Amino acid sequence: MSGTLHVVGLGPGDPELMTLKAARVIGAARVVAFFSKKGRIGHARRIADAHVSAEAVELQFEYPFTTEIALDDPRYAEGIVAFYEDCAAIVQAHLADGRDVALLCEGDPFFYGSAMYLFDRIHTDHPTQIIPGIPGMAGAWAHAKAPITHGDDVLTVLPGTLDEDTLTARLANSHASVIMKIGRNLDKIRRALTRAGVADRAIYVERATMEGELICPVSELDRAPAPYFALVLVPGRQGKR
Amino acid sequence: MSGTLHVVGLGPGDPELMTLKAARVIGAARVVAFFSKKGRIGHARRIADAHVSAEAVELQFEYPFTTEIALDDPRYAEGIVAFYEDCAAIVQAHLADGRDVALLCEGDPFFYGSAMYLFDRIHTDHPTQIIPGIPGMAGAWAHAKAPITHGDDVLTVLPGTLDEDTLTARLANSHASVIMKIGRNLDKIRRALTRAGVADRAIYVERATMEGELICPVSELDRAPAPYFALVLVPGRQGKR
Repeated sequence: MSGTLHVVGLGPGDPELMTLKAARVIGAARVVAFFSKKGRIGHARRIADAHVSAEAVELQFEYPFTTEIALDDPRYAEGIVAFYEDCAAIVQAHLADGRDVALLCEGDPFFYGSAMYLFDRIHTDHPTQIIPGIPGMAGAWAHAKAPITHGDDVLTVLPGTLDEDTLTARLANSHASVIMKIGRNLDKIRRALTRAGVADRAIYVERATMEGELICPVSELDRAPAPYFALVLVPGRQGKR
Repeated sequence: MSGTLHVVGLGPGDPELMTLKAARVIGAARVVAFFSKKGRIGHARRIADAHVSAEAVELQFEYPFTTEIALDDPRYAEGIVAFYEDCAAIVQAHLADGRDVALLCEGDPFFYGSAMYLFDRIHTDHPTQIIPGIPGMAGAWAHAKAPITHGDDVLTVLPGTLDEDTLTARLANSHASVIMKIGRNLDKIRRALTRAGVADRAIYVERATMEGELICPVSELDRAPAPYFALVLVPGRQGKR
């Protein structure tokens, strides 16, 4: 009898924004797996800390890269594929031995999550369950007190890695937008927000719902952004109706 | 001392997909408010049922319309504004008397939620806290086992009320899409999916995470959709990397 792979969304960072289901499944798991940067425990494991059983086997999967590498760099593609293959093999060995595995995921696992790459490799051979989580962007607009979409608004979620003209065109063509992956793209994103005519309502959010949370108008941001947990929100239709 | 308005996201429908924080805040609230259709208890109140205190005062706000009215119909604008003004006044009276109010919201409160219209009217006069929830679409792609966005995918969230040409153009121009508000727009949406070249990977999801959940390819849907809790997902980049 195969074990089940539970892919568990943990929400935006505040451990209390985990679901009741996530807390239950993590507590019952005999094997708990999670990704982290090299040499760090990682956000996912930290969010789940109060629920992981002392008896659980823990599988820490450290990303092979210590700095950001462009997605189109061939070293990235080679390295990351080998990494996910290795992780999947380790998880599959536990499943094949009949042990359930809870794979911990920040935010929502199927919304830009690394967990998808393990799911893709495992779901045809073993039972899987996906437990959704609150995406980081929903934690951001809640704490920014910025209703993001009303009525018939269109929402566009954009990676900040897009080129300036593409970002500008998409921002201008959407009622509401969220820009992910800010990091070193911030200056380009600022220019695109201005050219698209939405700079005046753009909000910068860093570490939403976590310690060190920072929320301010993009126009007032006076330092370099956090590389990972930063977002820009452009709320849609404003005001009362 | 004013009470606090807690705007509480409840997630996609399964009561276990509520957050730990939502459960705690609902349980402690002396006043619990929620929207519903006329003559129904409503999804939000039902999802929260296990957590509402027996001593809580309950405020049920029944929408003034029994059938869908177009957003651009002047009767809609008049009726709904008066309705939200009335609801806000009732909530504000409790806050002014020092009682906290938990406003229950399906999904995420700031993502196409009615709660925003009360928040807009109240937040300048009283303390507010927004507790995010899992949006219905995240419940849908989790249960459809359909990873929605990878890497640098762009995601577009579209109301099905858009005209066919606009829908087609936006679907063709996005890696991943979610279409909300299906209802009587289904035939038009099918045509747009086909014209945009994404019909083969479009998934219909109804009542995700709830009793009566239905998930199937749009091409195989052989009956009229549920008016409210139905979505169409167009997942982004497919397969392993």
